[in-house]
Formats: sequence, structure tokens, C-alpha cells
Amino acid sequence: MKLPTLRLNPKADYRLRNGHLWIYSNEIDNKYSPLIACPSGSSAIIENAQGHFMGIAHINPNNLICGRIINTINPSPLDIEILQQRIKKSLEIREQIFTSRCYRLIYGESDFLPGLIVDRFYDTLVVQIASVGMESCKDLIIEALDYCIRPNNILLKNDHKMREIEGLPSYVTWVKGAAADNILLEENGIKFQAPVTNGQKTGWFYDHRMTRARLKDYVKGKRVLDMFSYIGGWGIQAAAFGAQQVICSDISEFALTHVIQNAKLNKLNNVSTLLGDAFDVMHTLQQDQQQFDVVILDPPAFIPRRKDLPKGIAAYQKANLQALRLLKPGGILVTGSCSMHLPAADFVNAIYKAARKSGGNLQILEQGNQGPDHPIHPAIPETSYLKSLICRYIAQELPLLTGSSKLN
Amino acid sequence: MKLPTLRLNPKADYRLRNGHLWIYSNEIDNKYSPLIACPSGSSAIIENAQGHFMGIAHINPNNLICGRIINTINPSPLDIEILQQRIKKSLEIREQIFTSRCYRLIYGESDFLPGLIVDRFYDTLVVQIASVGMESCKDLIIEALDYCIRPNNILLKNDHKMREIEGLPSYVTWVKGAAADNILLEENGIKFQAPVTNGQKTGWFYDHRMTRARLKDYVKGKRVLDMFSYIGGWGIQAAAFGAQQVICSDISEFALTHVIQNAKLNKLNNVSTLLGDAFDVMHTLQQDQQQFDVVILDPPAFIPRRKDLPKGIAAYQKANLQALRLLKPGGILVTGSCSMHLPAADFVNAIYKAARKSGGNLQILEQGNQGPDHPIHPAIPETSYLKSLICRYIAQELPLLTGSSKLN
Repeated sequence: MKLPTLRLNPKADYRLRNGHLWIYSNEIDNKYSPLIACPSGSSAIIENAQGHFMGIAHINPNNLICGRIINTINPSPLDIEILQQRIKKSLEIREQIFTSRCYRLIYGESDFLPGLIVDRFYDTLVVQIASVGMESCKDLIIEALDYCIRPNNILLKNDHKMREIEGLPSYVTWVKGAAADNILLEENGIKFQAPVTNGQKTGWFYDHRMTRARLKDYVKGKRVLDMFSYIGGWGIQAAAFGAQQVICSDISEFALTHVIQNAKLNKLNNVSTLLGDAFDVMHTLQQDQQQFDVVILDPPAFIPRRKDLPKGIAAYQKANLQALRLLKPGGILVTGSCSMHLPAADFVNAIYKAARKSGGNLQILEQGNQGPDHPIHPAIPETSYLKSLICRYIAQELPLLTGSSKLN
Repeated sequence: MKLPTLRLNPKADYRLRNGHLWIYSNEIDNKYSPLIACPSGSSAIIENAQGHFMGIAHINPNNLICGRIINTINPSPLDIEILQQRIKKSLEIREQIFTSRCYRLIYGESDFLPGLIVDRFYDTLVVQIASVGMESCKDLIIEALDYCIRPNNILLKNDHKMREIEGLPSYVTWVKGAAADNILLEENGIKFQAPVTNGQKTGWFYDHRMTRARLKDYVKGKRVLDMFSYIGGWGIQAAAFGAQQVICSDISEFALTHVIQNAKLNKLNNVSTLLGDAFDVMHTLQQDQQQFDVVILDPPAFIPRRKDLPKGIAAYQKANLQALRLLKPGGILVTGSCSMHLPAADFVNAIYKAARKSGGNLQILEQGNQGPDHPIHPAIPETSYLKSLICRYIAQELPLLTGSSKLN
């Protein structure tokens, strides 16, 4: 079957030539090749205004991102061989780096499979499909994963919001085996059970793994507060690394039930939970004059869309100010942002402003990023989203300009 | 003794109010308070245009950076108590984080002691003074360090280029004890001897410690090339972490002699050396069709001054292109930059351009920074200088746009 061709407008090939994999609908030369003629989920040949071959793309004529390049070598759509080759490439580096088979196996564009996410929990794979093109290859993807990994269980966790934009239905279904709702995993040597069928995203966030590992040097014998704890990724690891006491707080009772289960799984008896809205919980803790050696603040994305940037920055600043007010002098703030739209420098700035507003100062001890199972594609800034900072809070006894300073 | 007062021009207090510690000579209201009246190395009260107290600064009327704030709490110059208090604060966090007493103890502005660097090698302190103000407090500094640390040996390694700008003489002298030229240290569990009296800077670069620790997951059983190796900080650790073979290359015979000594110190017999200019060495290796699983590229600062930026970026790109050409497909590039003037995004861009020029692609697996004994002061961008990337080199078999692409 010969694929249809879509021609780009003049100069619209720049981003693709630099290695990006997305095509926007306003970049198509609709007079020459009407986008609307391509069915949703089909594949098409992309050529530039001069007629040079740019690659094969998955097409969705109804989305602003109307094309995602899936092959630049030859004019073939995704087939079982290409899928297997890319899965094996992705597997190879994960198997080299990680001692347990618990990792993000496929990270979309960065692993040259736009629209596909696969998280591995030993013998269970949790698959998220985010594009109509990948949805149309669903059976091939399952076959290729089965061939390369030989998992006992494969779950399609296709209930992500992004699917709406692509015009895809929301569903969660086991397509191979059927594991329990709670699946065992290991991160940094600590065991967890993640609710893969009914938790957030794939049930677990492997992305902060490296920064969580760094808790080791900061929590021994310390009193630790883990805000936005979800099922305890940070807090349980802090406890396992020798914290004296850990409080995990989340707005979801479901999440906190899992915190307690995960504490038991690791035979930890120094983890407690606090149910409530994070801003309210931190406010109450401050009123109760509670003080912590370490506060961990890993909120959900406060900036889901670019236009939310100013409001989101204000939210990061507010949350971090509350966190700093709960820290002992010299205490450690571990703070994160998973907002792709937030530049790293703006994140640092928000945290620093919070520190100044609190009347203190900060030393940034460590800056973290998403782990190596979430590789960054240098030409696709959208693949880089995670930021973390480990800061020491310096109170008044060290040089500090207060007084009339108005820093917003 | 009452200190003289220097008044700032209107609005020249903005940076200080945000927490920066530097004053530029064009920010002084010379009509109100002539800068030239302050002796080099003296202390002065700094006030803003409205006469509000901004802090006490060390003054050098002959440098563009004419003032460095050393106290914002009260109008006293540095005394033994303030020095001891800050040294103890710095010591506290290093002792918490590191298992061996080998670290940067004082990192200038970030530890609120502008112009002072102290590296610790167990019982030996190596001190670098970079400002005439700190030079004038030399005896107090030595006394405070002696009181807080009780080291056996203190070396003043005052031969840095920066001292010329400050009008300070170049000298190297033991002011307490007199250790051997080669001092034992430990980093990431590996032993080294560093030439503290006649090596580069303080004899050792603790700053890349965290990224070097990450070599563990990338070098086992691999063939590793360490370019700009100096005394083997990267290469010896790669060998100790299980590399099959390591070649360290440097232009300095003195450095390579130390590589061999450090290999022996760790009972490693798989480390060899290659003397020569890095660009020449990499060119020759390529001509010999040598291939490596891992290439480490940690050059000296290619961008010593801001105006060197374009030339420096070109040098990073060239060096990394050569390094990539020595990598097997799927190989790992560990690349660093210690150029403060190079923004992180430009560094990524230079490496990516090199990859594209070589006809390949990259996955950024990890991004590193200076370790926690080199804290970053959020208001002083000059304190953040180190960048590293761990990248996987992807050759032609994966999607790749080549052909007519011109990316330069």
C-alpha cells in the first residue's frame, strides 16, 4: 500500500531537520496536500517544500500536533521489526543501568517512539498510548513488547487526559495476564507496591529516582515531612534510609492507605500520614509550631499549560514558602517540579524568592533531573520536564539583606 | 576604629538587595564618597542612595569588582568570631554529607566568605585567597581554620591568576606543618594522591564528584578513554568501578605520572596513558580506527572570559565531535564544562550539534552539576559554573535526519 504524501510549507522543515519529531497542522501545505484527506491514525510520507523526504509520520488531522515522525530512514510505516528494534535499544541501556527490572522502558519521543510510554514492574508492563497513530498500532506494539520482554502481564492504562485531545477513548484493560491491582516494584533498593490499575498515571513515578536516592545523605536521624506524598515514593525511602520520623501528607486517602502498606512492606514503623490539602496541612503544622529537619515538596504540575506560567510560578513560590516556614534553621528543603513549561531558572528563582520572603537565604546543594530511563532528546525540549533542588535553608545568623527589600 | 562609608548610586542597590555580594566600581557615588579614598583591602560601610545600611564590604578601589559584602547583620568587619561561625556552618553540612574528610570546605561567596576557597584533604587544608580584602585577613583566617578544624597542615596556595587582577603577589607556602607534595584524598571510595603544592588550583577538583560517582553504572567491562585526564580523577574511578581498560590522556607529563601513581595506589593494572594535545590525540586515535565504549571529556574552561563565548562554544563542539567519532554505536559520552560563562542550554546545544555533524543522534541520560560542597548561591550566578552530561550516542539505525541539513 502506497502511503499518501504531505508537503510542508516553505521553511517549515527546520525543526524536523534539527531532529524534532513533531509537525504542527499550520506547517502543512494544504493546497498541495490537504491534511484533512489523511485519516486519523494513518501514516503519511512527509516531504519539505522542495520535495525532499523528511520521514514517515503518524497523522492526526484533528490535533494541533498533526504529525509525529516515526521513521526517517526509509518510507515504511511502523512495523513489527522497527518496533522490536527500538524496544531492544531501549531495553539495552535500562538493563545496563538498573539492577532491578523496574524502570520506564519506553519514554516516547526520546526513545524514538512518539506517543508511547511503557513502565516496567518486573514481569508486568504498563502501557500508555497518547497518540491516535500509536493506538492504531496497538496490536503490533503488544506483540513486539511480548516478543522482546516476555512479560507475564501487560496492562493498557489508557485513561490519560492527553487522549481526549487526540480523540481517543479512555479505558484500562489487561491485554495479557491479569496481575493484582497492586504491583511490586523496587527503587533504590526499597520495595513498593504501586496501584497500576487505579493509581495516578502508570501507578508509579520512576522519574525522581535519582534525587530520591540522594535522600540517603540528608535524612539519617532526621524528622522528615513529605508533602504531596502520593503512595510514599519519597517518604518511605527517607524512612528506609534512616530518618527518625516521617510524616507523609496527601489529599487522597487512597494514596495514604498505600503509604501505610508500603511502610509495612519495608518493616518501617516510623511513618505516619496526614490527610488533607497540602496548603491547609502546612498552615496547620505551622500554627502548631511543628518543625522539621527535612521537608520534601513534590507537587503535581502547577503549570499544565503554558498560559498557566505566572499563576503556576506563584503557586510554587507559595508552597515552598510554607515548606520553608516548617524547616529548622539549617534544615533541608527537597523541592521538585514536573511542570515542563517551567524553565529551570524560573524554578530556582521562585524557590529563592520564597526563601527571601521568609527572611532567610538558601544554598543550592544539588540540582536533579529526570533519571536515565527518561532520556532527554536534545532537539525536543518537551522531553525535558523534571527539576529538583536540594537546598539548605540559612536563617538570620548569616549575612542576609532584609529590611526594605521588596522582591515580589 | 570607625569604618568609612561608601554610598551607592541611585538604584545600584538592586543586586545587593536580592542577595548578591558584589559591588562594581561604577555603582559608587564618587562625588559623595570617593572610592579612591578607601585603601586596598580595607573594609567600608556600604549604604544605598537613600542612606540605608547595605552591609560591610571588603574594598579594592583598583578592581572592577570594587567591593565584596562580608557582613549584612551589623557594621563590623570580619573578625575571628564571624569567621569561626561561618567555617562551622560550612563544616556542618560537609560532615553530614561526606563519609571522608575530603571536600571543599569553603566555597567563597556561596559560603558567605567572598574571595576565600578552602579544600580539605583529611588533616591538610589548602587555602586559596582571591581578594585583597581576604588577603588582609589572612592571619585571622588561618587562626579560625586552626580553631575549627585543628588540621595538621595548612598550605596557602596563592598562585591563582585571579590574584593578578586584585594586585596580589603569587606565592605558595605552608603556614602550619608541611605535608608532602602529594596528599592522600578519597573520592567516591577511591584513593588518590593530589599534588597540592605544584598541581593545578588546589591540586584536586572535587567539583565533579557526583558525576564521577555515576560512572559506576556505565563502565563495567567497558573500554574507556579519559581525555584531559589531569591526574586521573575520572579514569582511575572508571577503572576502580570495573572498566576493562582505561586510557588517560593529558598534555602534561607531570599529570600522567600521577595517573600511574594513582592507578598503583588502587592496585589497578588496566590504566595506561597517552601524552599529547587532546585534539591531536583524538585525531590520531580516530586514524588508528580506535573505538571506545565510553569517552570522558572534561576539558579546562574553553571560555575564560565572556567575550570568548563564540570561540569557546566552537571548541566544545569540535572536541565533542572528535570524542563522538571515537565511540562505538550505543556508546556513552561523559562530557563536562567548567566554563561559568557557558549557559547550560548552549552546552547541550554544542554537544547535540556535534552529534548531528557526526551523522548520529543523542539521548541525554543524565545532567550533572557541581557537588554539594560547591553550593550555588541563587542570587549569584557566578557561583554556578559546572555542567556535565552523560549521553548515549545513537548511530544511523535509529531515526535520523541527515542529508542536506545544515545546522551551523
